[in-house]
Amino acid sequence: MADGYALARGGPALVNLHAAAGTGNALGALTNSVYSHSPLVITAGQQVRSTIGQEVMLANVDAASLPKPLVKWSAEPSCAQDVPRTISQAIHTANLPAKGPVYVSVPYDDWDGEAPREAGHLLRRSTTSAGSLGSEQLADLVQAVDSARNPVLVLGPDVDAQHANDHAVRLADKLNAPVWVAPSPSRCPFPTRHRSFRGVLPAAVQGVTDALDGHDLVLVAGAPVFRYHQYVPGEYLPEGARLVHLTSDPGEAARAPMGEALVCDIADALSRLADEAADTDRPRLPPLPDFPSVSGSGGAVHPAELFATLRDIAPEDAVYVKESTATTGTFWSQMDLSRQGSYFFPASGGLGFGLPAAVGAQLAHPERQVVGLIGDGSANYGITALWTAAQYRIPVSIVILKNGTYGALRWFAKVLDAGETPGMDVPGIDFVRIAGGYGVEATSVRTAADFATAFEDALGAGRPALIEVETELTEP
Amino acid sequence: MADGYALARGGPALVNLHAAAGTGNALGALTNSVYSHSPLVITAGQQVRSTIGQEVMLANVDAASLPKPLVKWSAEPSCAQDVPRTISQAIHTANLPAKGPVYVSVPYDDWDGEAPREAGHLLRRSTTSAGSLGSEQLADLVQAVDSARNPVLVLGPDVDAQHANDHAVRLADKLNAPVWVAPSPSRCPFPTRHRSFRGVLPAAVQGVTDALDGHDLVLVAGAPVFRYHQYVPGEYLPEGARLVHLTSDPGEAARAPMGEALVCDIADALSRLADEAADTDRPRLPPLPDFPSVSGSGGAVHPAELFATLRDIAPEDAVYVKESTATTGTFWSQMDLSRQGSYFFPASGGLGFGLPAAVGAQLAHPERQVVGLIGDGSANYGITALWTAAQYRIPVSIVILKNGTYGALRWFAKVLDAGETPGMDVPGIDFVRIAGGYGVEATSVRTAADFATAFEDALGAGRPALIEVETELTEP
Amino acid sequence: MADGYALARGGPALVNLHAAAGTGNALGALTNSVYSHSPLVITAGQQVRSTIGQEVMLANVDAASLPKPLVKWSAEPSCAQDVPRTISQAIHTANLPAKGPVYVSVPYDDWDGEAPREAGHLLRRSTTSAGSLGSEQLADLVQAVDSARNPVLVLGPDVDAQHANDHAVRLADKLNAPVWVAPSPSRCPFPTRHRSFRGVLPAAVQGVTDALDGHDLVLVAGAPVFRYHQYVPGEYLPEGARLVHLTSDPGEAARAPMGEALVCDIADALSRLADEAADTDRPRLPPLPDFPSVSGSGGAVHPAELFATLRDIAPEDAVYVKESTATTGTFWSQMDLSRQGSYFFPASGGLGFGLPAAVGAQLAHPERQVVGLIGDGSANYGITALWTAAQYRIPVSIVILKNGTYGALRWFAKVLDAGETPGMDVPGIDFVRIAGGYGVEATSVRTAADFATAFEDALGAGRPALIEVETELTEP
Amino acid sequence: MADGYALARGGPALVNLHAAAGTGNALGALTNSVYSHSPLVITAGQQVRSTIGQEVMLANVDAASLPKPLVKWSAEPSCAQDVPRTISQAIHTANLPAKGPVYVSVPYDDWDGEAPREAGHLLRRSTTSAGSLGSEQLADLVQAVDSARNPVLVLGPDVDAQHANDHAVRLADKLNAPVWVAPSPSRCPFPTRHRSFRGVLPAAVQGVTDALDGHDLVLVAGAPVFRYHQYVPGEYLPEGARLVHLTSDPGEAARAPMGEALVCDIADALSRLADEAADTDRPRLPPLPDFPSVSGSGGAVHPAELFATLRDIAPEDAVYVKESTATTGTFWSQMDLSRQGSYFFPASGGLGFGLPAAVGAQLAHPERQVVGLIGDGSANYGITALWTAAQYRIPVSIVILKNGTYGALRWFAKVLDAGETPGMDVPGIDFVRIAGGYGVEATSVRTAADFATAFEDALGAGRPALIEVETELTEP
Repeated sequence: MADGYALARGGPALVNLHAAAGTGNALGALTNSVYSHSPLVITAGQQVRSTIGQEVMLANVDAASLPKPLVKWSAEPSCAQDVPRTISQAIHTANLPAKGPVYVSVPYDDWDGEAPREAGHLLRRSTTSAGSLGSEQLADLVQAVDSARNPVLVLGPDVDAQHANDHAVRLADKLNAPVWVAPSPSRCPFPTRHRSFRGVLPAAVQGVTDALDGHDLVLVAGAPVFRYHQYVPGEYLPEGARLVHLTSDPGEAARAPMGEALVCDIADALSRLADEAADTDRPRLPPLPDFPSVSGSGGAVHPAELFATLRDIAPEDAVYVKESTATTGTFWSQMDLSRQGSYFFPASGGLGFGLPAAVGAQLAHPERQVVGLIGDGSANYGITALWTAAQYRIPVSIVILKNGTYGALRWFAKVLDAGETPGMDVPGIDFVRIAGGYGVEATSVRTAADFATAFEDALGAGRPALIEVETELTEP
Repeated sequence: MADGYALARGGPALVNLHAAAGTGNALGALTNSVYSHSPLVITAGQQVRSTIGQEVMLANVDAASLPKPLVKWSAEPSCAQDVPRTISQAIHTANLPAKGPVYVSVPYDDWDGEAPREAGHLLRRSTTSAGSLGSEQLADLVQAVDSARNPVLVLGPDVDAQHANDHAVRLADKLNAPVWVAPSPSRCPFPTRHRSFRGVLPAAVQGVTDALDGHDLVLVAGAPVFRYHQYVPGEYLPEGARLVHLTSDPGEAARAPMGEALVCDIADALSRLADEAADTDRPRLPPLPDFPSVSGSGGAVHPAELFATLRDIAPEDAVYVKESTATTGTFWSQMDLSRQGSYFFPASGGLGFGLPAAVGAQLAHPERQVVGLIGDGSANYGITALWTAAQYRIPVSIVILKNGTYGALRWFAKVLDAGETPGMDVPGIDFVRIAGGYGVEATSVRTAADFATAFEDALGAGRPALIEVETELTEP
Repeated sequence: MADGYALARGGPALVNLHAAAGTGNALGALTNSVYSHSPLVITAGQQVRSTIGQEVMLANVDAASLPKPLVKWSAEPSCAQDVPRTISQAIHTANLPAKGPVYVSVPYDDWDGEAPREAGHLLRRSTTSAGSLGSEQLADLVQAVDSARNPVLVLGPDVDAQHANDHAVRLADKLNAPVWVAPSPSRCPFPTRHRSFRGVLPAAVQGVTDALDGHDLVLVAGAPVFRYHQYVPGEYLPEGARLVHLTSDPGEAARAPMGEALVCDIADALSRLADEAADTDRPRLPPLPDFPSVSGSGGAVHPAELFATLRDIAPEDAVYVKESTATTGTFWSQMDLSRQGSYFFPASGGLGFGLPAAVGAQLAHPERQVVGLIGDGSANYGITALWTAAQYRIPVSIVILKNGTYGALRWFAKVLDAGETPGMDVPGIDFVRIAGGYGVEATSVRTAADFATAFEDALGAGRPALIEVETELTEP
Repeated sequence: MADGYALARGGPALVNLHAAAGTGNALGALTNSVYSHSPLVITAGQQVRSTIGQEVMLANVDAASLPKPLVKWSAEPSCAQDVPRTISQAIHTANLPAKGPVYVSVPYDDWDGEAPREAGHLLRRSTTSAGSLGSEQLADLVQAVDSARNPVLVLGPDVDAQHANDHAVRLADKLNAPVWVAPSPSRCPFPTRHRSFRGVLPAAVQGVTDALDGHDLVLVAGAPVFRYHQYVPGEYLPEGARLVHLTSDPGEAARAPMGEALVCDIADALSRLADEAADTDRPRLPPLPDFPSVSGSGGAVHPAELFATLRDIAPEDAVYVKESTATTGTFWSQMDLSRQGSYFFPASGGLGFGLPAAVGAQLAHPERQVVGLIGDGSANYGITALWTAAQYRIPVSIVILKNGTYGALRWFAKVLDAGETPGMDVPGIDFVRIAGGYGVEATSVRTAADFATAFEDALGAGRPALIEVETELTEP
């Protein structure tokens, strides 16, 4: 929930956990936060200082090691007097690029200590990062773009996180170049109905290369190069292509297997590049074709119908938090996402993010409707977020895509020719009853029309709603 | 679920997790396993070897560090060829005293490798530990016991884990000495209706000392010395008392703030001590008084009524998995637990253990009825265990003690004079609907009589059952 | 030696260590490297992959953990195929700001593997960091400087490391502001005879504040804020003073207890600030007074005499590597250091740096004379560096300041009123014999005049020389 | 020095290090200590608590992580009040089996705190381990031995460390079985002139198997199974052989690739096994042949001559600390070591152990003559130990085997067919001058006769002596 809040709000969020067990419970979720550069400032309870070494009940033994390597920085202050500075350090560390989660364990009795007088300085502290390109760096970059015969942009989640979407559009327009989204995106960096939009790159080596074939310059911004998922060996780049990589994360820059990396402020770089790049005589790209048409089989709602319905009736600035892994391709082909901050997906594919993150995002954006699109398997990781939504009347809409199976894995088992695989199905779950048990009004539908009605009912009701939709099984 | 299975079964259980996110999700639960000495052998998925360094999607970066410090040992084999030996090492490490969870990360493509021929030796490996007292050590111990004027036994969970309960009874009988359970017990090491049984020591320094006042020899077996919880400074021991500490865990021995520790096989030590100790002329202890009588207020079931009812109608060899923190004292005063392996509680108080552990324990003990006694807050941590119970028709009985609040914390806030504290209550949860949503038949009761009926219905039904009991708020 | 080479050269140096023992031996030295931002790329040997888990002889168990936390990054590739990319990642990580040492463990049999074809991309990789101030950031900074009544500059070692010395001089001249060196400097960022030079700030809270009294703006560049050493509580800053902190290290920015930090390219920031700052009507600062006069007691050479002699007869562009802790104040008051890269001191005070670093620096700068100024205690940490100098005829001059005691500690014991402290003295060492034993020509002197003769003999001899100087005991 | 002291003395030794740099310097040496099970209790200085987080000068950031994984346990107490208990825990942890080094970082200002009253209990603490075989375990072991047709003993350093040498002799005599020393031994567990003694097993898989060919039972005690060094794949055991492994280290037991391991008190197990094993009708083994004769080439002393001379003229109970890697085989074939504690070698082959360990061993054993046998390369790692010996008049005899090259590596390069390898030679070192420079009387010899004279002069001189012996190059 905090992660959804921090990502949607774009700044640090404070999370307080219960000692070792609470920290342990949170670590699965941190696998996403650390890759979504989510600036969570996590504090955790700890036993009385003098008793930690005895490993008394609830002592968090070796507390600073516990969340590693899933945080950017972790500490337990050496004494009560250093608690204020340590928390200050945590906030500044979380928020400096590349942003990320941080952890501070605070012994119980420290809160009884008196803050040292010098802690007053902490209130006036600021830390800022200068990541502007130097004039030579900019000139080199402009030269690379201007001299390219057929450039292509590949944009990642940090373009959206740093509100550089409009700069990316200006650059794409100036270059008349196609735009891909980097593999496995956790945010949407570019309007999906812009004439340059080409969709999401596949998450495999050869697939990326095939998609980028024919380009002599690949300009990547705001993504690792590249976050492959499925191992299919192959060529890293089309023959003769040059890859230039703009990122705010030195780690991403250093570990990439190819390319020339520039660690910089992405928004500044894209904006200045859009200003300085020469006009091109490449023809303007044609508009995108219409949305692919949809025809369900009748027995259940086809996900494409579902998304098409949402596209038509949801507010234009709706925020989608999605965790339905078998409908990825369908989603990107049906949706019209044009605003910054419209889409969130677990950055490491760590399931359990979606439902609570939707609640958190709705808290961060009271003025936008948040829609959670959650698979029936995923929903159970954090089903109790429904209770929070009910208790605090957070008006999020949760759509459960219920196909009764782990669709992405089922597809993957087929790809691997694994034969019949056990444990894939999740039959026998009635989300309407469960939601009711947690105090959220819910309904179940089996047609797109019924979904539309239910969704329109939910909009503006001023309280959370859950719609269970029986969906057809699709492949990612 | 695996932890409950391993604890009830008394041997290693294999757990397979999904890479970093799955590991992260499991870590909260490991805070209990590491202190309950639960021999979990945990394997985790990992990406293709050559892609881990690039931090591709689902790569478990620095995998062997991730579960630390909550495992006894952790590794990622250096190459496919060493996977068999590493898993063998994991199993032997988990199972050698002091037992504990271990972790092995196995890259995806390793499973395609061929096991080296020498791996055949692994199938014939065994590791055993000799922890018998030497003859001098035994003589010293006997001398300590024989020369004590007024000895007392303090027993911990490892007495139960190592099936030394009967040896402890023999020793208590020979010495005519009282027996306490060490603070915050996760298992029941001694029959609760035996004339020597004195209950559970309080989890605070001065409280322990007060309870042990007058004894000149404190013989602790199978517990840390001591697992305090609430920090109240005071004397560690009654004036002049000598503490002798039998443990199978060298870490427990080394870190204790007092006492003479002997790292040994507890069952062997207690048994030989019971054999060799001299007969005493201390008078036989009187039988325990009757159970305290119970009088509910009428509006809801008093936990004491609930436990008294269970005592009367549950099978004598029932196994209780308990995670209701506000009813601890009441439970111990009402129950008659006489068999090995009758009671499990989260060893670090890490909530979320109870409901799934009850399911796991029932899998390990098809011949005994497992009863989960779960608070309404706790139940939500792992509510989806109900689905597993339903799908596999595991005949566990889950009793939800529903008082609508976090009773233990509410009491603690009063102890600390914290005034009105927010976020304590968990209203608005209907467990009957939720259980139904997951496929488990459930009922809600408000009287002890209705509870008895519902419980008897559940027994022998050959399927899981959940009984939501509205209970009065009590203090731990 | 490698550290001295990397620091003097200003770029990555490759170090190859022998498995765990070699790594262990190197870790003391890394305490300096990690704070001097020395981009050492360290590789270490490792046993055959399939045998590491068995902990065979020379296996480096948990190799990637071994150098932590003294490296910026550490890894063992997951397989032979990823060795090239991992080493590439190491080089780029070491060299990106903030620079620092990195570590890669490579199993023995990996070198027999074939590099994957895609490794060809690594040869064309580059990583660059953009740290230019944005136009608003620069304007704010200029405004801060222009509106200050009485600004002061505090410069740290990274000003020298980033070759920003001349920009600092231009800025000081434009502002007519005094310049201090940040406490415990490991490099010299500013000409010591420039009219603005005020010396080195003391390494204690109150001492810094006293030294900065009266200034309303403290502009710190290229240093932590602040690297105190001696704990004397006090005010962090003069009343009403504002501290602005320019650093290339986000860690330094985040952890400081006060000030407004800007993580940026220091050279760029100082240069543009010197360009853009308004002319001031503050009067030009008066020239520095003459060097303090020196009068030894006669029995041995006073360090001030020694340094004055060096100032007079050593080449103007000589490089001093100093590790004589009891002569710090004297050194700064006597030397005339005006060139970039003229001075190196162990950045964490980790002794043993000096003698080998002088050898390494001489290797990096064949065109400048390197002079090692080494205490008689320090010299023994790495005395065998003399052998390397002899074997490779590296013409470094090593001056041993021999006062027979650990002067800095002796002084500190007095400060702490510790009474007579044992183990301070190092009598009975004859460096002339030892140097001879390692093949370096050496001489011992007891007067400044004899030192001058010996030093002039050494200059241009085309081989290393050691001069043991019996010195008077001074205080830091 | 401390390691040599602790090993020779057989109990914990306190080592105090200087913060991070001192710890770093010590880590190379710890690679040996952790495998020799040396119970070093290491404390390290640390900055004032409230300043550590700021990373002030000499702060040991993340101190408890620094020595990992080369210590058994590591901690920084959470507050001053817990320092006494933490140091107590360190001592007990170091000394419980399997023994090993431990580390405690203590902040500077903690020493000003007052010890809590309960710390008095620490003075009366004891921890003991019971590792006696249970009666069934013993019976199984006796049965294994009695039923073996042709058993063989393989003994490791822990037999010597646990003073079980005589029990091993009794067992070998009873069984009329041959005895090998496990590969790469760091101590001598068995009299080298006993009729059962067969020498040291080679450190390669196939070599061990070849040496053990024909045996149906391999009983290993006090060693890992096995500490191979050179990777030569092969069969782990002769066809049909059974391996039983007695060890006090659960880690050794768990990670071995073969065999049935029994974690126990080795001395107790060997002694009781010698008592209980049946008499055998296998014939008594013949006495060992005479020592191989020695014929040097004349130009320098052959190591065999040197060792034969020592055998003749050194006291029978002399202690040898050896770090000359190219003379291993020669040494074992020439020496007559019959007493417990007669031989020490770096347990991980981490060079630098020998010279200071010899000094430390002499401190631990004033009543026995310690002889350091040190290669000319090795000697330089810790050459300053000579100064300590001189200052404290520690009457150790140091013999430098000077062949001017790194003989073991030169041989290894030949094995690997590596061609001409650079950097192997260490010419131009005059140990007589160096020793003199540090205050130790020294002499250089070129014949065995001169060595004998020099050695006899050194014996009983009541001060340290160094003898540089020009030796012929041999192979390990």
